[in-house]
Parts: sequence; structure tokens; C-alpha cells
Amino acid sequence: MSPADPNYEARVRASFAKQQFMVTLGANLASVQPGEVCIELPFRADLTQQHGFLHAGVVTSVIDSACGYAALTLMPPDRAVLSVEFKVNLIAPAQGATFQARGRVVRAGRTLTVCTGDLRVVGSDSVVAMMQATMMAVEGRTDRRD
Amino acid sequence: MSPADPNYEARVRASFAKQQFMVTLGANLASVQPGEVCIELPFRADLTQQHGFLHAGVVTSVIDSACGYAALTLMPPDRAVLSVEFKVNLIAPAQGATFQARGRVVRAGRTLTVCTGDLRVVGSDSVVAMMQATMMAVEGRTDRRD
Amino acid sequence: MSPADPNYEARVRASFAKQQFMVTLGANLASVQPGEVCIELPFRADLTQQHGFLHAGVVTSVIDSACGYAALTLMPPDRAVLSVEFKVNLIAPAQGATFQARGRVVRAGRTLTVCTGDLRVVGSDSVVAMMQATMMAVEGRTDRRD
Amino acid sequence: MSPADPNYEARVRASFAKQQFMVTLGANLASVQPGEVCIELPFRADLTQQHGFLHAGVVTSVIDSACGYAALTLMPPDRAVLSVEFKVNLIAPAQGATFQARGRVVRAGRTLTVCTGDLRVVGSDSVVAMMQATMMAVEGRTDRRD
Repeated sequence: MSPADPNYEARVRASFAKQQFMVTLGANLASVQPGEVCIELPFRADLTQQHGFLHAGVVTSVIDSACGYAALTLMPPDRAVLSVEFKVNLIAPAQGATFQARGRVVRAGRTLTVCTGDLRVVGSDSVVAMMQATMMAVEGRTDRRD
Repeated sequence: MSPADPNYEARVRASFAKQQFMVTLGANLASVQPGEVCIELPFRADLTQQHGFLHAGVVTSVIDSACGYAALTLMPPDRAVLSVEFKVNLIAPAQGATFQARGRVVRAGRTLTVCTGDLRVVGSDSVVAMMQATMMAVEGRTDRRD
Repeated sequence: MSPADPNYEARVRASFAKQQFMVTLGANLASVQPGEVCIELPFRADLTQQHGFLHAGVVTSVIDSACGYAALTLMPPDRAVLSVEFKVNLIAPAQGATFQARGRVVRAGRTLTVCTGDLRVVGSDSVVAMMQATMMAVEGRTDRRD
Repeated sequence: MSPADPNYEARVRASFAKQQFMVTLGANLASVQPGEVCIELPFRADLTQQHGFLHAGVVTSVIDSACGYAALTLMPPDRAVLSVEFKVNLIAPAQGATFQARGRVVRAGRTLTVCTGDLRVVGSDSVVAMMQATMMAVEGRTDRRD
């Protein structure tokens, strides 16, 4: 997949830096490639649900951002990306020291981009959660700039 | 819907108090009724995405907990609840002072419970996001106690 | 919800008549109102899965058409409707003499419309399946006319 | 993935033969491997929606059956498989002479199995639709035998 904006990585990194919730979670942008973005998240006790695993919403948050930014890598410079919807299957308890969320573009359309994403424990192959998501390109709105 | 455990509200409140991520978000359990749970979440800038609205993952987190606990209100005392999967449509930007997430049981089965949920701005009727979710009852595991 | 096209019902009925698969299933358009469409489907043995109930794909087909046409009732005359995605929970076995699928618009945007839908056995209140769906308005394409 | 029932292929083929709706659609079981099943579907005009493409419900039907039987390949002999829920993204118009639906097990649990599936045009790499699905093993019910 070839990016419409040669400056795609800087654009994604600048937008990610504005996602204050990623700072709150302690998430880092691990890699940015055309159509694929990885986010790393170290475990923290204050991100857990009642059994001591990462809360499903935390899992969703980092996969959603990874998918959204994977979509943004392929969009022209004047577009912003919004999540339209996603579906997540929680496959295994989110236990481990560090997690990696990966988002990948399956099809980039003019308006809608379909992505898949997952979360894995770093150093393990087992999938914690899987996402199938629809992202939307928003054009020409100065209040929704990425 | 009638609860199998007369002590359902205390059980839900005790489990919610153990969800450290809800504390991190600043979310409160607003109401607990058989088959329906509401969670309130005040806006905070550190929960936002790049355009200044609540991150989709935050929106998902509180609706997921509301759905999970709605399911738990109808489960016998020895069960714990896990999210199997959910699907979220993000319908409007999550902007406002306070948000309310509501989870409702549509059908409570022995193993699986199907819920719907949404997030609204308090004082407004407009829906920010909608969820359709599957929850699972886990039985007899001392490490997954609610 | 107010239709942008006063001729919405005729338009929906004409488009439904072109869905050859609805004829194959034996489905009928039961009612067309702004933002809500109902489709009726009599049981037939040749629509079943291995246990003798309606196949999940049949269930999905009629709810999807109901949701799509619910979305179309609110679109201007020159738009066609396409299903972007949907999620279905299969809640109870689809057994009965006649089924009714209902699609309802939750939010109609310029490009995307979010719907909920369900399938019930006629004469019963119990829900067989629930759908949450995203529909898209396609504009100005002579090959995608509704 | 290793099958719990050495007779898995015969079991899947026998159950598929009982899905009368697959006969109605003209679908064939193309391949059965542990954790992966392919179904072929030739185009027919009576399976189309209003623009002349396969109806989204037809697309869903064959991917759902492929996912369900992929799950069944890994289940012990006395279990039957039911679709709990699925989510489908419709990525490109379903136009072509023959379609292939593929279902793959991502994780096989004791009760729930998570699958991904897709539909492609035979002779093309482009994906028409993608599914993420949850299947359930039902045990010891003589009326739900696969």
C-alpha cells in the first residue's frame, strides 16, 4: 500500500501525541508503516478490571488507535480520521508485562477504510483480542485536523 | 427480569470497586437494577483523542462495564462475568460535561448473556455511542470471583 | 424522523421489488414508515440449517434489508443505499411459522446511517436475533439507483 | 490445529448436507481441513440485491457456514455447533462468476470458538467481505446433532 502523503509518519506521530488518553494509558507508538501501525502498552495495575487483567476498554483503546492511525497513513494530507465502529473479540485474559496492539488496513476507500487489529503479549504469539473496524476520512474541517 | 441473587447490588458494587480502571477514568456506578446498570463519567481532558472528544476506547470502557454488570445482576452468586465480545458504533462526538453509560440485558442465558448499551450526554437525549455485547458467566473459578 | 423524499414509500417498494433474493426467500415488505421498515418471512424448510431452524444467513438477510430500507426512507431521491457492515447476535433458535424483521434508524447522517434491527416470531415477543448496522448513502451513480 | 475427532471431515460433510439453505443457494463444500473450511458459491441472479450483486445476506450465509464448520472440525464427536454472533464488513460489490467463502478458527475454546472468515471472487485476490465470528459448542442435545 502506498501512502498519498509522503509525510505520513510525521503526521501520525503528531496526531498520536495529541491523543491525551494514550498518555494517560502510558501507550507508545512503536512503529508506523504505510497501512500498518503498532502501539506498545506496558501493564499497569491501574488499567485493570476486577480480576487483575487489562480492562477490555483499555485493550480496545490501543487497538482502535492503532487501526485509526493505520488508516491515516494512507490518507491525503488534508484528511482527519474518525472511528465509525469496531467489533472486538476478547480471546484470552490480557495478562503480561507489555502488550502490542497492531492495526492493519484491509481496504482503503475514498471515504471508508476497513482495518483489522489485534493485541498480543510481547514475546508471545497468542492473541489477546481481535478487532474488525471501520474508519472514516473527514475532509476540510479545521476542527478535526490530524 | 428477576435476579438469582438477592444480594445482586452489593455484589455489583463490590466488583465495580475492584475495577481499578474505572477509578483511573473517574467513573461512578450511578444505578444498579436487575438487568440494567448505569455508570457516570465526568469529562476530563486526559481522556480525549486528538480532536478533544472522549477517546472511543473510553466510551467503550464505560459501556462495556455497564453491560457486564447488567449481566452480573442476573447471575447466581458463584458466577463471575467476562466480556466475550462487543461491537460499538460511534454515532456523535463525545463532547459534554458528564456522560452516562447504560447497559441492559436483552437475554440472559445459562452461559451467555446478550446486552445492549449506549452512552449519552447527561441532560441530552442524543446518543453518542451504541454497543451490542455478549457476556459470559464463568463458574467455580476462585481466581475470577466477582 | 422526517423523510427528505415525500415519495419514500414508493421508492422503497420499487427497490425491494428489485431485490431478487427477497423473492427467492419468499419475503414481503410488511410496512414502510419514515425511519422504520418491517419485512415478513414465512418459514420454509429450504431455508434451514442442520437443526431445522432458519439459517443465520436467512435471518441476517431479512434484517439487513429491513435496516437498509429504513435508512433509504430518510435519504434524498438521488441516493442509493449500501450496507457497510453489520453485527448480528443470534439469541434464540429461529423456529416458528412466520417471522418479522424490523429495521430502525438510530441516526441518519449525510453519508452514514446507523440502524438497529431485530427478528421476532410473529405472535411472540421473544427476539430471535438483533442487528446493529451501518448503511451508506451513495450519490450520483447511475448503476446504483434505488 | 489438531482435530479431537479423526472423523471430522465426514462429520462436517454430513452436517453440511443437512443445511437445506446451502442447497437452496447452490453452495458446495470445497475443502475441509482442521480449523479451516471453504465453501464455493456460483453466482446466480436470484441471489442478488437491487444493484445486481450478491445480497449481503447471501455473502453472510456462506461465510457463516464456513466459519461454523471450521469450528466443528476441532470439536469432539458429541458436540453440535451454533453461531453465537458475527460481524461482517462488506468491502467490495459481490460481482463475479464464482465466490469462495473461507472460515478459519483463531481460537478454539471448550465452549466458544472464535473464527475469521472472508469471501473472495475465485480467480481474484480482492476481498468482498470479512467476518469475525463467535461459535458455540453445544453438548449432549439429541435435537442439535451435527
